[in-house]
Amino acid sequence: MKPSQRLYVASDLGQDRVVALDSGQAHYLAHVLRLPAGSAVLLFNGRDGEWLAHLSQIGKKGAEAVCAEQTRTQTPICDLDLLFAPVKGDRTDTIVEKATELGVARIRPVLTERTIVRKLNLERLRSRAAEASEQCGTLFVPEVHDAMSLMSLLDPKAEVRRILFADEAGDAMSIAEALADKPARVALLTGPEGGFTPGEREKLRASPWVRPVNLGPRILRADTATFAGLTLIQNVWGDWT
Amino acid sequence: MKPSQRLYVASDLGQDRVVALDSGQAHYLAHVLRLPAGSAVLLFNGRDGEWLAHLSQIGKKGAEAVCAEQTRTQTPICDLDLLFAPVKGDRTDTIVEKATELGVARIRPVLTERTIVRKLNLERLRSRAAEASEQCGTLFVPEVHDAMSLMSLLDPKAEVRRILFADEAGDAMSIAEALADKPARVALLTGPEGGFTPGEREKLRASPWVRPVNLGPRILRADTATFAGLTLIQNVWGDWT
Repeated sequence: MKPSQRLYVASDLGQDRVVALDSGQAHYLAHVLRLPAGSAVLLFNGRDGEWLAHLSQIGKKGAEAVCAEQTRTQTPICDLDLLFAPVKGDRTDTIVEKATELGVARIRPVLTERTIVRKLNLERLRSRAAEASEQCGTLFVPEVHDAMSLMSLLDPKAEVRRILFADEAGDAMSIAEALADKPARVALLTGPEGGFTPGEREKLRASPWVRPVNLGPRILRADTATFAGLTLIQNVWGDWT
Repeated sequence: MKPSQRLYVASDLGQDRVVALDSGQAHYLAHVLRLPAGSAVLLFNGRDGEWLAHLSQIGKKGAEAVCAEQTRTQTPICDLDLLFAPVKGDRTDTIVEKATELGVARIRPVLTERTIVRKLNLERLRSRAAEASEQCGTLFVPEVHDAMSLMSLLDPKAEVRRILFADEAGDAMSIAEALADKPARVALLTGPEGGFTPGEREKLRASPWVRPVNLGPRILRADTATFAGLTLIQNVWGDWT
C-alpha cells in the first residue's frame, strides 16, 4: 500500500540516502499521526523525483528517513508564473495554495497603486506552498519571490515572458487567443480588490509582451480571477492539454 | 457616476416602487457607509433587472429606496448546477461565493459516504451567495438548496441533467468532450476531502447522464475542483463563450 504521507524536503534524495526531516514534520509524524520507526513515507525535493523512504529514527528531537526506492522520476513543470497583487486576510494564503495545485512554477506578489496589503509573511506563504505540494501529488514546490512593483515588472530590461492580465474592458481577448502562438514562458497577472488604475492599464497594454484577457461577464474577485485564469491557461497551454 | 452599492432585494422592482431594505442592509448603508437620504443605490431581485434607486428614508429602524430608472434588463442565466460535498471550515462558504461569481443557477450540497461535514447553516450560505452576487455584478442570486444524498441524486426518477463528476481515474474525459453535444442542463459534481468511494464511482459511471471528467495531472482539493470545473464549463459551454 502506498504511504499516505508525502513530505517535501530540501536535501538530495537517492538510494540509501539518510534524510533529516524538519522539526515540524517530525512533530506531525510522531505526535499527530503517531507513526512508529520503520513506517513508510514518500519524499520529494523538486529535483530528484519521489522516493519511498522508511523512518529510521523518530522522536522529540527530530526524525530521519532512509530512501529505499524511487517511485516517480522528476517531471518538468510548465514555465508559468503567477504575478498577483496581494489581497486581504486569508485570501492571499489561499491564492498561494491554489496556484500550487494549479501547477505554477513561481509566485510573485506585485504591488500596484491600489494594493492595500503591502506587508507579506513570505515564510508563511512558502510553507503553504510546500504543504499544498505535499497534498496535491506534484513533484515541485513553486518558488515564492519577494514582492516587486508593477512598474519594475514592465521594465524593458526585465525577462521576456508573455503576461496575460485580467482586464475588465470589453475588448480584452480570450486566454486561448492570447496563447494561440504557444509562447514558451507565460505569466498570469491579477490586480488588487480595486483593480488596476487607468494609468496602469494603459502602461500594461502598451507593453509588447502583455495581453489583456477576459474572464467572463461577471466581475471576479481578485482571488477568483487567479483560480479561473490559471485553470484556463493550464487547459489551453499548460499540462492539462 | 454609477453608485457603488448594489443590493439584492426580494421585493418587486419597477418605476416609482418603494422598496424596503432589510435591517442588515440598512445598518450597512447608515452606519458603515454613512450614506444620507437621497443617496443612489442599485437594486436587483433576480427577476426585474437592475434599478437605480434613491434612499427615501434611512435610520435606525430600517431603510427604504424608491426606484427611479431601470439600468439593466434581466438576462437569462445558464442552467448550471453545482452539486458539491460540503468540506470543512470556511471552505464551504468560499465554494458558495466562487460558484456565485462563476455564474451557477443552483447550489446543492450532496452527502456522500466520506462526507464528514453534515450540518450546514443554509441561511449563512444564502447570505454569502447574495453578497457575492451584489459584488460580482450579476442580476441573479443562485438558489442554495437543502443537502441531498448522492444516491437520491442518481435516482432514475430525478430530473434529467448532464452531470460531470470530477474523477481522478486516468480514463476520465475532458470537460470539453463531456459537453461536446451541448446539453441544455448541466451540473458539476465534486466529492469530499477523501473523494468518492469505489462503489460510488461505479454507480456514478453507470448512470446514463453522468460523465467522469478530468481536472488535470495534480490532485485538486475539493474546493479547487469546484473552481476549476465551473471555470472550464463556463468557458466551453456557458456564458463565457
